[in-house]
This record gives sequence, structure tokens and C-alpha cells, in this order.
Amino acid sequence: MPAAALLLAAFTLILQQPRPQPAPGSAPIKFEPTAGVQTFAVREPVLRIKPGAVVESRTFSRAGDYYERAGGAWPGEVGPFYIEGATPNDTLVVKILRLRLNRDTAVSSVGPGGISAVAGDSRTRMLNDPLPARRFVWQLDRTRNVGVIELPSSASKRIELPLSPMLGRLAVAPAGEEEFGGLWPGNFGGNMDSSDAREGTTVYLPVFHEGALFYFGDVHALQGDGEIVGSGLETTADVTFQFDVIKGRRIRWPRMEDANDIMVAGSGRPLVDAFRIAQVELIEWLVDEYGFDKMDAYQVVSQAGHSRIANVVDPNYTVMAKFPKQLLPSKVK
Amino acid sequence: MPAAALLLAAFTLILQQPRPQPAPGSAPIKFEPTAGVQTFAVREPVLRIKPGAVVESRTFSRAGDYYERAGGAWPGEVGPFYIEGATPNDTLVVKILRLRLNRDTAVSSVGPGGISAVAGDSRTRMLNDPLPARRFVWQLDRTRNVGVIELPSSASKRIELPLSPMLGRLAVAPAGEEEFGGLWPGNFGGNMDSSDAREGTTVYLPVFHEGALFYFGDVHALQGDGEIVGSGLETTADVTFQFDVIKGRRIRWPRMEDANDIMVAGSGRPLVDAFRIAQVELIEWLVDEYGFDKMDAYQVVSQAGHSRIANVVDPNYTVMAKFPKQLLPSKVK
Amino acid sequence: MPAAALLLAAFTLILQQPRPQPAPGSAPIKFEPTAGVQTFAVREPVLRIKPGAVVESRTFSRAGDYYERAGGAWPGEVGPFYIEGATPNDTLVVKILRLRLNRDTAVSSVGPGGISAVAGDSRTRMLNDPLPARRFVWQLDRTRNVGVIELPSSASKRIELPLSPMLGRLAVAPAGEEEFGGLWPGNFGGNMDSSDAREGTTVYLPVFHEGALFYFGDVHALQGDGEIVGSGLETTADVTFQFDVIKGRRIRWPRMEDANDIMVAGSGRPLVDAFRIAQVELIEWLVDEYGFDKMDAYQVVSQAGHSRIANVVDPNYTVMAKFPKQLLPSKVK
Amino acid sequence: MPAAALLLAAFTLILQQPRPQPAPGSAPIKFEPTAGVQTFAVREPVLRIKPGAVVESRTFSRAGDYYERAGGAWPGEVGPFYIEGATPNDTLVVKILRLRLNRDTAVSSVGPGGISAVAGDSRTRMLNDPLPARRFVWQLDRTRNVGVIELPSSASKRIELPLSPMLGRLAVAPAGEEEFGGLWPGNFGGNMDSSDAREGTTVYLPVFHEGALFYFGDVHALQGDGEIVGSGLETTADVTFQFDVIKGRRIRWPRMEDANDIMVAGSGRPLVDAFRIAQVELIEWLVDEYGFDKMDAYQVVSQAGHSRIANVVDPNYTVMAKFPKQLLPSKVK
Repeated sequence: MPAAALLLAAFTLILQQPRPQPAPGSAPIKFEPTAGVQTFAVREPVLRIKPGAVVESRTFSRAGDYYERAGGAWPGEVGPFYIEGATPNDTLVVKILRLRLNRDTAVSSVGPGGISAVAGDSRTRMLNDPLPARRFVWQLDRTRNVGVIELPSSASKRIELPLSPMLGRLAVAPAGEEEFGGLWPGNFGGNMDSSDAREGTTVYLPVFHEGALFYFGDVHALQGDGEIVGSGLETTADVTFQFDVIKGRRIRWPRMEDANDIMVAGSGRPLVDAFRIAQVELIEWLVDEYGFDKMDAYQVVSQAGHSRIANVVDPNYTVMAKFPKQLLPSKVK
Repeated sequence: MPAAALLLAAFTLILQQPRPQPAPGSAPIKFEPTAGVQTFAVREPVLRIKPGAVVESRTFSRAGDYYERAGGAWPGEVGPFYIEGATPNDTLVVKILRLRLNRDTAVSSVGPGGISAVAGDSRTRMLNDPLPARRFVWQLDRTRNVGVIELPSSASKRIELPLSPMLGRLAVAPAGEEEFGGLWPGNFGGNMDSSDAREGTTVYLPVFHEGALFYFGDVHALQGDGEIVGSGLETTADVTFQFDVIKGRRIRWPRMEDANDIMVAGSGRPLVDAFRIAQVELIEWLVDEYGFDKMDAYQVVSQAGHSRIANVVDPNYTVMAKFPKQLLPSKVK
Repeated sequence: MPAAALLLAAFTLILQQPRPQPAPGSAPIKFEPTAGVQTFAVREPVLRIKPGAVVESRTFSRAGDYYERAGGAWPGEVGPFYIEGATPNDTLVVKILRLRLNRDTAVSSVGPGGISAVAGDSRTRMLNDPLPARRFVWQLDRTRNVGVIELPSSASKRIELPLSPMLGRLAVAPAGEEEFGGLWPGNFGGNMDSSDAREGTTVYLPVFHEGALFYFGDVHALQGDGEIVGSGLETTADVTFQFDVIKGRRIRWPRMEDANDIMVAGSGRPLVDAFRIAQVELIEWLVDEYGFDKMDAYQVVSQAGHSRIANVVDPNYTVMAKFPKQLLPSKVK
Repeated sequence: MPAAALLLAAFTLILQQPRPQPAPGSAPIKFEPTAGVQTFAVREPVLRIKPGAVVESRTFSRAGDYYERAGGAWPGEVGPFYIEGATPNDTLVVKILRLRLNRDTAVSSVGPGGISAVAGDSRTRMLNDPLPARRFVWQLDRTRNVGVIELPSSASKRIELPLSPMLGRLAVAPAGEEEFGGLWPGNFGGNMDSSDAREGTTVYLPVFHEGALFYFGDVHALQGDGEIVGSGLETTADVTFQFDVIKGRRIRWPRMEDANDIMVAGSGRPLVDAFRIAQVELIEWLVDEYGFDKMDAYQVVSQAGHSRIANVVDPNYTVMAKFPKQLLPSKVK
């Protein structure tokens, strides 16, 4: 058996096995962030870990920041984590084992000058007067798992919404020398603002640099599709990840997987191009791993695929294309 | 009490009452279509009914048409039904009481020259060679509620998908003198291709002409979000509607309601503009009927609203903006 | 020589000849419009003419209409003219021999609710407050060929702009049964709002119905690229056309030709799709008539082609793709 | 006279004066680039100059690069130049005094995987097969000022196009920590690919960092509107700039000025948003510097403004909005 075939067989085995567990007896790594960074880029790692490692951490916040007061600075993201053995053209696997809110409030800021899907902003310039600025502070009742806000100008006076915490930002360092601000999503992940990035979800990211250089942050206690106001219920959380590396498997765009679906996160502008990226990548996924002919995969995704509009406010918009796992045939590789 | 206030009170009462039922003892009207029409427009009605009437009918098909053979002509839509008492600026209410498939096959045709969300077509012109033409014929197992297709070029050789029948086209005659072909969705409804138009869903359409002039057709036994291949599992069905009119209530875009959500169907190009229409109309709905301040409604829809990309292939794309009914406060009117 | 080759040779000759002139001695036809129509559609012709005919007419206006007072109704377009011998898949040739303003004022109306490229409107819905309504009445100094307006709120108090009259609407009846309101451009021409449709320009339109059924109207004494405010200097004019038919030559989208350029008018939404239609049609024009290989035509148009954004306000946007005539090689057919 | 008024008067004087000339007797600075950079970012300057300085340089190229052979690496841009006294919220003025081609060939590369306005690419993903790869090598006849290429597959066999050299990339370091690859245009300028950046044009760029940090490169001997094939006639040139700083004047997007027009370069996706940025900025320019009321400026730009689609292939598209200088009233500041 030649080396290449052996390698392929080995990879196939790896892929068919359950996700790697930490070595028996190896305790989770605890990582306490002491600073946040404002961009996704190649920089000195704050933590080095091995594939299979479980890391318990939390998103970053500091006194007086965005979460605490109007006009407070954005605290930035945590990272990068260097995952040993991850090299370009591998796939980084990030399982969100646990995501738990750790504060009693969440904020949602609205303009002026803010980003919006349904009002003029700095990227969709309009001659109309801007919307007034508002800062909504939500109370998070973590026992009942609801967010509550007083709305004195509305007939109902208050409203209560069930929470569904998510991680807005999950990234690797982008390809080449580029360095994108924390608002950007792209093929490196980043600020996808997808409510599918929840506890229990596994996220797959392409690797562009040695060690992958993983970043995370931007918890939303709740966010609707499209994040039209430009922010979710922005807050902080404790989070536990397990990391893994799929050697030699290259993906072009972030993928996710939860109990129900396999998913691709396409990011771009215009919205239809984000949608196209996600759909075409999903079709190619069915071709590559599930043995579909391209036209058959196109047909099947068209009939049984689902989509979520994740964000329509960031420098790139993000759309999730999904296919139900129970409808998939067996993998061919 | 002045006349206007009386009128308002009366409307409010009407709106708060359960949807009108057919007069006791009045049997459903049976309507057997004998022809289809190719456009949504003002034309001579094929049926005249009163508000509250229940109509049992079916979508139209004729021997040798699109459903039966490659190259077969599109049979057209059924209608128009004239609903007595419906006048411009009223709202037509169409409850889909029953929607049952009535044939054992469904077809999905793919180019060349076909419409597509992920390939060049006549509206998104590209220099690339067109995709090859294909006609997928699905077997509908109505007992097990699945569609089955043989895929000899794929590793799995066949695939089976659970069905979820929907009505692609539900329309009133468009405003003014305009006459749109059957592929068009718009503020008059039309070819919205929304999988939310299912059995149990209530559809609200604006009325632009006396009698509303209602059309329906284009059953999909199943269709994924975006209908990326340009067609669902195209087939025919028996359908039972109940009609009603909300006098004096003007809506600008079609709305729907099912057990879980209130919804708006925004149609336009680009995709982001269809999304914007749906979101802004949903926000204004919360303002008008549920007493929200505009900025509060904007916030609340942003945090708890959901969206479905209905189609990204028709002359206008359609996006559904949804809000969960259980999160709504009481109506104020 | 077989019939097909003869036919081809004949067509080639026709195309290489100067545009047909009215038969010697045949006087121009004078047509005085007495009504306007609100849609582009198949309807009873108001005039029947032969290919080669010259028609002297004017755009329609009536007392108290849009041109005369705020809130005045749109007078509608003139037509249809039935051009004998024009059958589907022919090309209608319309030479604008003369276009002369015939009134001393022009108006440009701005919202609210108006269409705009840089403010929320009914198709690009925004939560922002609408712009205030304004009606600008320009004085047309036809001797000096300038439009003049008083601007009391601006430092300059008045401004004077050189005029460049154009015809906003030039159409044939659309394919099939569809009927589009006067605001629509499309593959049938219509409200392209291209400032290239000037005196001296030849316009080519596809023929979808017997007689072509030609419409015209909507004079702009001046209009900038994109018509961002939703209207040009809207006024009326005397216009002289010469009509011709190219038998057996099918074009998919309107074309124009002036002293400098050959042009294609692509209409659609989003803007990039209007641009794509125009560019791809222009490339295919170079392939079909000038003997370019497709990749060569793509290269050459990319390096020497020009574009004009005609309108970014109508139900479809219009983009002109142009290629300089002096850079073209000889025609191959 | 208070300090602020004095300051304003001083600025007004500066603005009304002819662009600063190098001090009498001060020779132009000659700068020979020895390396290129791949991103627009804050980095160590390669040259420090004073406002008013004239710099004679050339775009960078090295043996075996993109310009010389298929698959050759992109040589990168020249810079950054540090302009003394330029601080954030100033405006950098770059006058292109001279731009002369300095090699006898230019190349235009086409896919596969290449960027395109009219074919699927990595940002507008399509299921269609990609276009074939081609590398067009143009001969530049600098005496006759034409580019010539053999086209063996086309009827004409060769074509000759008049040249019009331009600089594709003119940038300052972007705001904050972001670092964009050389393909990006944005509010920092960058790869705008505007054929208006020619000899004689003055370019205005916002200043985000001390010294402005100016970059340039990417000469096109010729490029059509939209650069639809993804490249112009890519070559190198000698270039002479004169630099200046307008203290205390903040612009949000790049501006240009030539003998005929004032212009704004708006960059973004979708295309309509690039168009909107350019138009709204142009309107605000007329308001700020020429004393127009906003609605008046909107009207006047709509009637007499022109646009150029600069590129429809880069990560952001670029549109130029222009207003004829001869139609402008006097400046008010």
C-alpha cells in the first residue's frame, strides 16, 4: 500500500471517529483573558495548546467598557490561541462545549452613525436624516433564561424575550498579511454574527497560518436573524471549547455542525453573494464528502436545504446554508 | 360618538372576532378549474363568492403540460375569484384550510436558460457556459409523505426527502393596469414561492380592485429556502380556502400567519431590498397593531425576529420576516 | 446559392447600407397625439406606417397635467405605432432625426414617497424619515439652450445648466401578455431614462408582436447620470422619427448608436445585474457582428468599453455599455 | 478677530491659492523604489517629505514578476511616503504632475479563479464551469500612443487601442490597525482602478495617521469602465507627484479634480452602495464648500452630475461621481 493511500485511509479513519477527547486524566486548561485585541491577524499567541485540548475561558471585558456604559470602548476579542500541529490547508475544529452568560445585563446600541440593515449608514449612504441614537439595556434573568426590558414609550411598557446565547466572533488569522477589524466576517470566520454558533455547535475554520491562531468574543444573549439594528443583546459569557485539527483537509469557508444540520457560513456583499457562497460551498460539500454528482447535489440542496440570514449589518453580510443531517446518505470520505 | 369613531370601533370588533365561519348549513363551494391563466391581472372572474365562503378546488393541470412531459406548457393559475364586498384598501384574508397533493409525481426542471440563484441566467448574465439541462422526476409517496428520486450518478443512487406541500402562487390583481406574468411576485402576492404558505396558514393580501380578484396555483410538494434551482417539486393538489375581507384595513405587502408566527412577504431585487421591505413592514405592523414605539419595535424585531429566504430566482426575490406570536403583547387595535 | 445564403447576403447588404430614406417625394407623416397611455402593452395602434417612414410628432401633454401643476397627472406616452412588416424576432430601428423642446418650463418633483437613488423609497425601504417634498420648476431658455432655476436657500441664489434634451421612454410592446406601467424599463425598452437617446441617435428594439407597437414619451431637457432625484428636467418636445425594420435579426436587449459609439441598454436590479446584461450583450454583439472570439471580445470591451449609469431609480435600473465605433474592425455580417 | 475666525480665514486663503509650488531653487526629489509592499497599512516610511515637495519616482517592478511572465508575483506598491505635518483629519493632496509609460508591453490576465464582473469568481460564486485562463500580452507603441495585440482567433486578427495611462492604486494607510491587501479600495483610496487618476489629476485623500503614509502603484496603460476582465493593460511608468496638506479639512472619501470636473470616489459593495457613497459625498461637498442647500444640491447633482463606473471586480467596487467645474458657483469656503 503506497504512502498516499495509507495517509488517505488514516484520514478517513480519523474523520469517522468521534471527535478526539482529552487524554484520560488530562484536566481542562483554564485560560483567564487579561486583554482584548481589536483585529483578526497574525500576532503572538496568548496560549498554546495541543489538539484534543479542552479550554475553559471567558470572553473579555474590563471596567467601564462597552458593556458597562454608553460610549465605553469595545473590549476586543480573546486570542490568539496557537493550536499545535495546525498548518495551512488543515481545518481547525472548535467544539463549543459550554456557553453560559456571566453577567446580569446586555446592551444594544443604535446609531446615530450606527450600522443598520434598514436605515442609512456609513456603507449604505442615504440623504435622509439618521435615526436617533438609543442604548437599550436589557436585564438578563439567567434563572428563567429571559431578557427583560422596560419600554416606556410602547403600549406594553415592557417585553420579555427567551434567551439563546451565541458567539458572534470565532476566527482564525486571515490569509496573507491582511488584518481585519473585529467587525469583519470573512472566509476566516470573524464577526459572522450567526445565532447557530451556540453551545453544542462544532465550528470548522480553514487554517491559513501555523497554529491557526484562533480568536473568540462578542457574546449575544439573543439575536434575531439579520441583526438589523446592528447589535444583539451584547454581553459576556463563560465558554468552554475543545479544539481539534483535521490534517490535510482544506475548506474554503467556515462550516458548522449541530444536532440537526451541517452548515456553511458565506460572508460577503451584496447579500445575494453571501447567499451564493454558502449555497455553492454546501453543494460542493455534498459532492466531496457524500458522493453526490454536482447536478444532483444542486437539486437536493434546492429541495431540502435551509438558510439563515445571520447578519445584514457588518462590513460583509453572512448567510448560513444548511442541510439536515438525517437526510444525508453515508459519507464517502 | 361620531361616525368615524363608531366605524373604528366596529372595525376593531371585527378584527378581534374569530375569522368568519360559513353560515351554518352553508355547504362549501366546489370549483373545478377548466383553464389556467398566464398573468396576474384584472380579468373576468371565474367565480364570485361572499366573505366567509369556503371553496374546495384544485390547482389546474391539463394533459401533456409541464407536469407531465419535458417541454410541456405551464398550465397557468386558477382565477380570478371575485370576493364580494372587497374594495380597494381593504385586506383580503385567505385561509388555506387544506392542501393535499393529488398526483404521484413532481418535477423539477433545470436550465439551460433556466433561472437559478447560483448560476448565470437571463437576469444575472454571465459569460460562463450555461449549466446542462436536467429534468428531475420525483415519485411522491403520499402514504409515507416522502419524495423519492433515483440518482444513478451519485454514490447514494437514490434519496428520499420528507414532503411539505406549499402553494407557490397566491395573488390578487395588481394595482392599476399592470399585468405580470405568472413568475412574478410583488406587493400583490403572486409567485412568492414561500414554503410558509402551507395548510393551516392564513394569507393576507392587499386589495387593489373591486372584488380583489384572487388567483392561486403552483404547488410544491417540497422546496428548500431560496428555491435555488428555480423550481420546487412542482406538482398539483386539492386545496380548500376560506375567504374573508377586512374592511378599511390597508396593508402594503402580503402578510401571513400560522400557529407560530406573524409574517410579512417582501419581494424585490436586490435580495437586501426584499429583506428590507419585509423587516420594515413587520416593524410597522408592531407599531400599528401592537402599540410599539418605532424604535422599540425596531429593537424587538432585531432581537427576536426570524427570516426565511423564500426565493432567489424569480423576477423579484422574496424574503419572509417573522415574529413569534407568543412574544407579542396584546393588540391595541 | 441556397435560399438561406441568399437571405443572409441580403440582410448583410441591408445592414451595410445607409439607413433607409423615405421614398423620394414621400412627405413626412404628421401625427398629432390626442391621448397618452399609461402602460407598455399590446393595444390598438394609433398609427400605421411602413418601414422607411418619417413621422413628425410630439410628446403628449394636456392642460393641468404633471408638467403644469403640482399633483397633476402623468399624461402618458404616445403610441402604439404599428410598423408594417415587423414581426417577432425582427429588430425595429428608430432614428431620432429631431428632438426639440417646445415649452418654456421643466419640472423635477422630489418625494415624499418619491423614488430616489440616495434616499429610502418604496422599493428600498428604510426606517428613516422621508425627505421633504419639493417641486423644482426650471425655466428653459431655448435660445441660449440653458435651464435656469432660482435657489433662494443656496448661496448662489440661482443656477444655470446647459440643456441636452433626451427621450426617457422608447418602447415596443413587451413579450407575451405582460403589461408594464410607464415607469418600467426592460428588454422592451421603456423608461430607460438614458441621456444617450438624443437627437441623432438610432435606437434598436426587439420586436415581440406583429407591428412592433412602438411607444415614446418623457422628454428630459437635461438629466444627470443615474437620475438620482427620480426625475430629470421633465418637459415636452417636438420629435421626428424615421422607422425601419431589420428582418430576421433578433436582439435580446435595446441597442443604440450615435456618432461615437455602439451601445446596449441593460435594465434590471440590482445595479450590477443591469451592468452585466449590458456588458455581456455588448461582448456578444462584437462576437456576432464583428467576428471576435468570445474571450477576445471580453478582453477588448474590458479595455476600451465605456459605461453610463442611466437610471438608479426606476423599477429596473438601466446601464449603457458602449464601444467606440472608430475602434471596431469591419463587420463580418 | 477671534482665533477661530482667524484660523478659518487662513484656511480659506490657503484653499483659494494655487497649489503650493516647491520653494524656488528646490529641486525635485528623486525616489528610486527598491521594493514593493503587498498591503496598505501603517509601516516604516521609505521617504519623508515636506508639503510642496515634488517627487520623481516610478512604480515598482522586479525581474520575473507579474509584468514579465505568466505566474509571476505581484511586485507590490511603492511606499509609504511620510508627508510632514499631515495629521489625522487633514486632507492629503497628491497632484499627478507626470505619468509616462516606461516599458513596451502590458499584460491582462484572465482567470481561472480570476476576478470578473461578468463571470463567476471567488466572491460571486457560481456553479458554472469557470472561463478558460488567458494571458493577453499587449505591445505598447509609445510613439503612436497605442496598444496593439494579435488576436488569431478573431476575424480582425489584431486590434489597436489608443492608450490613456492611469494609476490604479493611490492610498494612505487605513484608519486604525486595519491592513488591506493591495486589491482593496476603500475610504483610504487604494485599488480604486479609476481611469480618472491620470496625468494632470489632483487626488485628495483623508489622513488617518501621522504623515498620511502614501502608497502608489498599478499602472494601466488603458482600462475600460468597470475593468470587467479584472485587469487593465497592466504595466509600469515613471511618475511625478507634488504633495500638499490641507490642514484641518476632513474628507471622508477620496476626491479628485481634473480640468473638467470635481469628483468623489465611492468604494463598496454592492455596486449601488458605491454609487450612493459617491453621490451623497458629492452632494455634501456642494453643500459644504459651494453653499448649496442640501435639497438644492441634490437637485443640481441629479441634473448635471456624471458618473463613471471605475471597477466592478475588486473586493470593493468603485464609482466616481462627478460635477462639471464650469457649472459650479463660487466657493463659500
